[in-house]
Amino acid sequence: MKHFQLIIEYDGTGYHGWQRQAEDRTIQAEIETALAAMTGGPVTLIGSGRTDAGVHALAQSAHFSCSTRIPPESVKNGLNSLLPPDIVIHACRQVPDTFHARFDVRGKTYHYHIRNHPEPCAVGRQYAWHLRAPLSIDRMNAGADCILGTHDFKAFEGAGSPRSDTRRTIFSADWIEATDHRVIFRITGSGFLRFMVRNIVGALTAVGQGKLAPEDIDALLTGRDRTKAPATAPPHGLFLVSVDYGGKDSG
Amino acid sequence: MKHFQLIIEYDGTGYHGWQRQAEDRTIQAEIETALAAMTGGPVTLIGSGRTDAGVHALAQSAHFSCSTRIPPESVKNGLNSLLPPDIVIHACRQVPDTFHARFDVRGKTYHYHIRNHPEPCAVGRQYAWHLRAPLSIDRMNAGADCILGTHDFKAFEGAGSPRSDTRRTIFSADWIEATDHRVIFRITGSGFLRFMVRNIVGALTAVGQGKLAPEDIDALLTGRDRTKAPATAPPHGLFLVSVDYGGKDSG
Repeated sequence: MKHFQLIIEYDGTGYHGWQRQAEDRTIQAEIETALAAMTGGPVTLIGSGRTDAGVHALAQSAHFSCSTRIPPESVKNGLNSLLPPDIVIHACRQVPDTFHARFDVRGKTYHYHIRNHPEPCAVGRQYAWHLRAPLSIDRMNAGADCILGTHDFKAFEGAGSPRSDTRRTIFSADWIEATDHRVIFRITGSGFLRFMVRNIVGALTAVGQGKLAPEDIDALLTGRDRTKAPATAPPHGLFLVSVDYGGKDSG
Repeated sequence: MKHFQLIIEYDGTGYHGWQRQAEDRTIQAEIETALAAMTGGPVTLIGSGRTDAGVHALAQSAHFSCSTRIPPESVKNGLNSLLPPDIVIHACRQVPDTFHARFDVRGKTYHYHIRNHPEPCAVGRQYAWHLRAPLSIDRMNAGADCILGTHDFKAFEGAGSPRSDTRRTIFSADWIEATDHRVIFRITGSGFLRFMVRNIVGALTAVGQGKLAPEDIDALLTGRDRTKAPATAPPHGLFLVSVDYGGKDSG
């Protein structure tokens, strides 16, 4: 058996998220089906984590084991010829048997894109949340400072998907202004609870619109009560940008 | 009767181009239908020119006449609430009765986006032509210099749509490299024949890949023979970026 890592870009618009489901179209299922067609047998693909319905990825990471003699470069090219155009494999490489795409994660980076303008956009509307009211980048960055370091993120966990340990460490988090009325949130952390980035974005945009004070983010964290936090930002602005293994994925 | 100008952004992916057709979904028909619903009568919308099926616009310009008492800002907001999300009205303003969106055009700017990388992209694949072979920006800019000024562009006119006068003036034309393996062609001219920008892009990318010499563009222009020129670039990389009226649209 050989062990392979895939680096995967996808447009999440047409999918019910990463994880295989009985009925719905998912990224994992599409790639597993293509791998099975290439290698002649069932293959299980383990991702670095799930992404939810409608969320995009520029470089999701996943691994699979297979007793194929197809070289990694040909696996990549074969998958790209079989997969639909909204999923692209950017790399396939053989990795040590000990590598695990989920358990070995040391950090993940997400970006969240907002169009901040009275009118929505038509071109690229699938890739940014439209918010009419002007956002203060300074206020949102002050709020983002509150989540740096290790905290209990219970207040930012999606309802109905509890984890026993809700502490996570955020290495960096900031907001930048881009061209064409784009505002982008960039966050890197040890790991993320379900809906955590979108819930943080929901809270920080409330700060950016003056509905909350930056220090209210501290109070939300301490309170550990999801029902006190603002609404979840929609999925289509969110991108999984990179997964860091501290070098464990280079064999 | 009042006279209004609209500035319109659209994602051309789902449309058979600008111009109303009996059967197919078009941008003009969508907006005319919305205008009729708002104003209670048929409205004819005159665009600055057609865009072909699959071509996008960031700022198409069009005019219509109507005896409504709805203020321009409310026309804009009303249209945006009626139109599908892939068409957005960015401005509606009252203009002099003498203004004509097509006849008064003094210049137009188009951009053409290429993803130049061995692998395609998934996110934004609707908005860029994927070319695997590396492109030389310097060679393409040398080729672009050949089309500056006034020329007979017969060799770059789409087959089956002849115009009696095929001379046009190009004010500027260049290639730039952007982030994420994007290469962008920017062209401004007095006007463009059907398929002209896409045919120029087809020829200049052949120069960029070494299949033609930059000075072959001169020979193609002089030869006036469409069948000698390289293939037309696909529509989904093309954006109508702006329409210039030399101030005639400000009343």
